[in-house]
Amino acid sequence: MSPGIRAPGGHRRCHDVWGPFETCAKALPSNALCVADERVLKLHPKIRRVLKGTPIVAVPAGEKTKSLSMLTKLAKQVPASTRALLVIGGGTVGDLGTVLAHLIRRGVPLIHVPTTLLAAVDSSVGGKGAVHVGWLKNAWGVFHYADSAWLCPELWQTLTPDQHRQGHIEAFKMAVCFDARALERWRHGPPNELVKRARAQKERICAQDPYDSGGVRRVLNFGHTFGHAFESVTKFRLAHGDAVALGMLHALALGDAPPGLTREVEDVLKRLGAPPRSRLAALLKRPGLTQALAGDKKGASTTGANMVLLDGPGRAHVRWVELTARPRRRA
Amino acid sequence: MSPGIRAPGGHRRCHDVWGPFETCAKALPSNALCVADERVLKLHPKIRRVLKGTPIVAVPAGEKTKSLSMLTKLAKQVPASTRALLVIGGGTVGDLGTVLAHLIRRGVPLIHVPTTLLAAVDSSVGGKGAVHVGWLKNAWGVFHYADSAWLCPELWQTLTPDQHRQGHIEAFKMAVCFDARALERWRHGPPNELVKRARAQKERICAQDPYDSGGVRRVLNFGHTFGHAFESVTKFRLAHGDAVALGMLHALALGDAPPGLTREVEDVLKRLGAPPRSRLAALLKRPGLTQALAGDKKGASTTGANMVLLDGPGRAHVRWVELTARPRRRA
Repeated sequence: MSPGIRAPGGHRRCHDVWGPFETCAKALPSNALCVADERVLKLHPKIRRVLKGTPIVAVPAGEKTKSLSMLTKLAKQVPASTRALLVIGGGTVGDLGTVLAHLIRRGVPLIHVPTTLLAAVDSSVGGKGAVHVGWLKNAWGVFHYADSAWLCPELWQTLTPDQHRQGHIEAFKMAVCFDARALERWRHGPPNELVKRARAQKERICAQDPYDSGGVRRVLNFGHTFGHAFESVTKFRLAHGDAVALGMLHALALGDAPPGLTREVEDVLKRLGAPPRSRLAALLKRPGLTQALAGDKKGASTTGANMVLLDGPGRAHVRWVELTARPRRRA
Repeated sequence: MSPGIRAPGGHRRCHDVWGPFETCAKALPSNALCVADERVLKLHPKIRRVLKGTPIVAVPAGEKTKSLSMLTKLAKQVPASTRALLVIGGGTVGDLGTVLAHLIRRGVPLIHVPTTLLAAVDSSVGGKGAVHVGWLKNAWGVFHYADSAWLCPELWQTLTPDQHRQGHIEAFKMAVCFDARALERWRHGPPNELVKRARAQKERICAQDPYDSGGVRRVLNFGHTFGHAFESVTKFRLAHGDAVALGMLHALALGDAPPGLTREVEDVLKRLGAPPRSRLAALLKRPGLTQALAGDKKGASTTGANMVLLDGPGRAHVRWVELTARPRRRA
């Protein structure tokens, strides 16, 4: 291999630019193409005004947009002159755009403009892009690290409390896995500078394990083994953050977390407005759950899964858990 | 960036394994999927016998196979358990398979089994994969370096003299660009150990410029600026090697090569059976040629192109050439 020569989209620290969209847009590279969530374009008409002269392709948000057919549709709309990609949207549009940026001319620079808190704290950091193939979530994808992200808080003002919660839960997950003092900070709700903290935390983790090669990055999966399965069996009616919150509660029940920690995590999640633990029982009985778990890319089968468990605050580890076993009773 | 941590499919030296297919196949990783040229499968029924138990997807060869629609078709046939990809075929199947290997689970190890000389000496080395988008050749693609290549000479015995010639011309192009002593070696036709030499030569170049970032690798494009355009305007009826041979002759005419070198290159190409220089005039007048040139990913417009020119044997450089200018008269 060639140390020092970065693969297109290879790991790099994202350059975060905070400010109103019109200020950030001054740094738009020439010959950029913009792919944007059609709803965001309607909610924030200034985006089209500011980007005047830049081609804009509007796409719907949602899991269906992460598909090969959407990529094929986009292919017809990418000008041959495209030399950079600006992606404006939440997680699903961001994931699609990341794949697109990687494929155009074997990789062009990518700028993320996360328009949901969830995307700002999580999916727009770490280089992952993917599309679903059939029922297989994120079956095909790429790593393509963004050159920069524009963080424009005014674009988050149109988010619903529900959408805010999804971001809060993911940010809390990161804190509880990696930062022993985090619970204290979160005890009364989302802390100050939540987005900055979460992005910095995820950047640190990704720098150590940029391509998710079985290193520390796996810990980011806390709450996600069951979380993804819950999303899948509810056909994504359960939102990602809410599914992860329930996944965290279930992982705590399956692991060796001290009862005090489980209680504290549950308290914070409750304060954030996450679905209560009582929702778990019905979800765990849903048909298709075992199949959904076995499809997990992180290593699972119909009998067990590699799960992230917590020993204590900030102390996460990966362990194979037999899924036929009943959860231990806790607090 | 993270030096020392290789991106999925990032640059690595390819491990070349020479031998009969059945011997090579002993190194097949578990959970591999095989994508193979349907014609090769028919010509060499032993492939299916040897790979018994490994899922095989047959695809047609040819430029049409390098498409998003073919990738979408393949998506339905990739088992969720796939952890490695074996690609058996020539350049077009290899290019498609390279993209596929990169996308499955954000990248799985790739093994190339080049079944044409052209693929053995050129396209299966260097990590490039691509699909065409509309009329834009190789518009979307990836770098995904193969872990290994199986070089099975018995699979090349069914090639036609025409197919052999395509490989010879590409190998000769590499030699003449990088190796001053090469002309001597080629004077009486293809030299011994042609495939080994060509692969080693291309490996050396790619190691210096693994992602074609404007470094030495551009020189590999000798003969290709016009070569690709000739393929395009003849709707690929002119084969790749033949098109490159004519592209080389035209590049020599446009550049500063000493007349003796031009004559020597032309002599070798003639001996290899490449189309004669007399074909150039008609091709250069074809409608659409200027457009095809302007679509060149390596930097071209309707008025000129970045072309690889030869100063002398083994001495290639890139220069902007005005294409409205008439070729200088030579020899």
